[in-house]
Amino acid sequence: MSTTHWQMARRAARLNPSTIREILKLSERPGIISLAGGLPSADTFPVQAMREATERVLREQPREALQYAASEGYGPLREWVAAELCGMGLAVEAAQVLITTGSQQGLDLVGKVLIDPGSAVAVESPTYLGALQAFAPFEPEFVAVEGDAEGPDPAALASARGARFMYLLPNFQNPSGRCLSAARRDALAAAAQSIGLPVVEDNPYGDLWFDAPPPPPLAARLGDGAIYLGSFSKVLAPGLRLGYVVPPKQLFPKMLQAKQAADLHTPGFNQRVVYEVIKNGFLREHVPTIRARYRAQRDAMRAALQAHLPAGCRFNAPEGGMFFWVELPSSLDATALLPKAVERGVAYVPGAPFFTSGSHAHTLRLSFVTVPPAKIEEGVRALAAVIEEALQK
Amino acid sequence: MSTTHWQMARRAARLNPSTIREILKLSERPGIISLAGGLPSADTFPVQAMREATERVLREQPREALQYAASEGYGPLREWVAAELCGMGLAVEAAQVLITTGSQQGLDLVGKVLIDPGSAVAVESPTYLGALQAFAPFEPEFVAVEGDAEGPDPAALASARGARFMYLLPNFQNPSGRCLSAARRDALAAAAQSIGLPVVEDNPYGDLWFDAPPPPPLAARLGDGAIYLGSFSKVLAPGLRLGYVVPPKQLFPKMLQAKQAADLHTPGFNQRVVYEVIKNGFLREHVPTIRARYRAQRDAMRAALQAHLPAGCRFNAPEGGMFFWVELPSSLDATALLPKAVERGVAYVPGAPFFTSGSHAHTLRLSFVTVPPAKIEEGVRALAAVIEEALQK
Repeated sequence: MSTTHWQMARRAARLNPSTIREILKLSERPGIISLAGGLPSADTFPVQAMREATERVLREQPREALQYAASEGYGPLREWVAAELCGMGLAVEAAQVLITTGSQQGLDLVGKVLIDPGSAVAVESPTYLGALQAFAPFEPEFVAVEGDAEGPDPAALASARGARFMYLLPNFQNPSGRCLSAARRDALAAAAQSIGLPVVEDNPYGDLWFDAPPPPPLAARLGDGAIYLGSFSKVLAPGLRLGYVVPPKQLFPKMLQAKQAADLHTPGFNQRVVYEVIKNGFLREHVPTIRARYRAQRDAMRAALQAHLPAGCRFNAPEGGMFFWVELPSSLDATALLPKAVERGVAYVPGAPFFTSGSHAHTLRLSFVTVPPAKIEEGVRALAAVIEEALQK
Repeated sequence: MSTTHWQMARRAARLNPSTIREILKLSERPGIISLAGGLPSADTFPVQAMREATERVLREQPREALQYAASEGYGPLREWVAAELCGMGLAVEAAQVLITTGSQQGLDLVGKVLIDPGSAVAVESPTYLGALQAFAPFEPEFVAVEGDAEGPDPAALASARGARFMYLLPNFQNPSGRCLSAARRDALAAAAQSIGLPVVEDNPYGDLWFDAPPPPPLAARLGDGAIYLGSFSKVLAPGLRLGYVVPPKQLFPKMLQAKQAADLHTPGFNQRVVYEVIKNGFLREHVPTIRARYRAQRDAMRAALQAHLPAGCRFNAPEGGMFFWVELPSSLDATALLPKAVERGVAYVPGAPFFTSGSHAHTLRLSFVTVPPAKIEEGVRALAAVIEEALQK
């Protein structure tokens, strides 16, 4: 009926359907053991504490919680975050903490404030797909910094000279599960500083360590040379969409204005509820229960992979977080294999989308946190059978 | 300590502190009667219904409410919005409804998907400042369409030919309070269609009519020629940050991908709570109570302005929404006058920032919804005295 001339912005070409999202749809079929998820386990959600906190907020401060609020975020929550980060060795003031609608929004704001079309943005290889999706509409050229099993190679950082920033997820990375050693962090921080390269450090999984806490963040070494992002999604619940970004002071005003333009502020109700839940040390009791649960499931997946994966496959056993990273024999293509796996009742995420080049078709990511140990065993066994079969062709 | 080279994106130059925000800080001094706010009255927040709904959601569906969720939004809420809009004459399917983190986010996504640097975006004169702030980082050239007291002039729409879209807020506009007549809507829709101009229609205040509902949205006349935005901020509570954007079907996939990149999804907890509140017709009882309250306050402000404003001042009395628009004698500058007004205990928002040209220094916006009638009288009296004094100089 209409002759309306809709013309999309050039950047819209860089907005694309998430491969993982499509896969997740596939794996939602009843009966499928999904090792594909990036979700935390709903069994870890502190429902009772949430109930008490929402009841308290709506009784004691309903008008404030339900009214428009400051774009920076709720003061006491910003104070809490600053104190927490100071405890991890960062020199952070509450005035630098910007509360975001999940840490995904922090990535969007970083992109908005720092990326020009054609400017370089350095990433790990592989890197977090959600970050690629957040940055892509701002039309950067991605530079994948080469590395090894220990993480990005400090010497290779020279390839990122002149980039607007390097994006790093040092703790139990999504997708690879790897955790950078203290020595590697030192070397990377020194290399970044030597070429004046800004670092954007994302830390959604740092609290989910199984044996020992990860080394301090790179941001603790870099001061004003880093933007730091954190999240309540993995230690409380992702459905609240609550994260934060901590830019150096000189970047804060523009980040704040970008936040205001994006959604005015993160729901004040959610901020106050989360603060009510955590203000008296709740996480000190709660997070260890998540660690214990995930550790047991990590152990189950490690045992299953050791028992069943065919020769020629390799995997890492992560020391925290939510993911195993598996390398199939290089003749196999994890994307091509996926429909067969789903036929056999198991789903995973192919690794290629986590590489800016789309290479590494023989890799895949397995989540161990939403499926109980017996099902993990069953799922890995099915996966192994699919791989066996493919190898025999 | 660091030699880090932070370079901001060019678009960051278009991110600027909100004048209004700075003014609101000023007006937060105790004792100030603030007619400056853009906030709804906290007295209208349905706290008891919210309590019951949160309790129910956390009892009956805590895992779903607290887990990651679909970027499109919560299915039943999308259905509800589609049904509501169909009732207003729009041909909308639930599959076109994208739930956003406040309608401000809808504006951000529209900008991201449709605005290229240097492309034209047409706006009313004056127009909603928050929309200018959302669009500006995408570096459009704003084209202000001239108009009269009835709204934008359909003939003047020709000046917007070739623009990516025209942004319109037809119902009880922020800041001017004006509501476009049915005839003006018809003429604007026809003019937009004749030149193929897309329309982005924002409707945060449409439910807040005092005497009769506003005419149907332009989108009802434009079909695929319009993007429609709505919000729960003014009929429930803004602290939940819940809005929606309804693009034509051909734009939906890119809007959805932009949403996913921006914050993955709007808090599922908030979506389910709001759905629990509204699903059985709650708003049919609740919204009339807001209307009655705001109508009485509108009447109080009209009476006070009639009684006290010096000769040479003009104002409109809005038929809904939250704002009066005042024109001072053209020799006066509302921004320059503001500190004097605050000294006398009253705050307002100068009108100039709502014009892309920054002109109309003699205009100002008054909110009547957060201040009780007696205080409105007192505030308007103080404002009138400040104007008198300025005129005598």
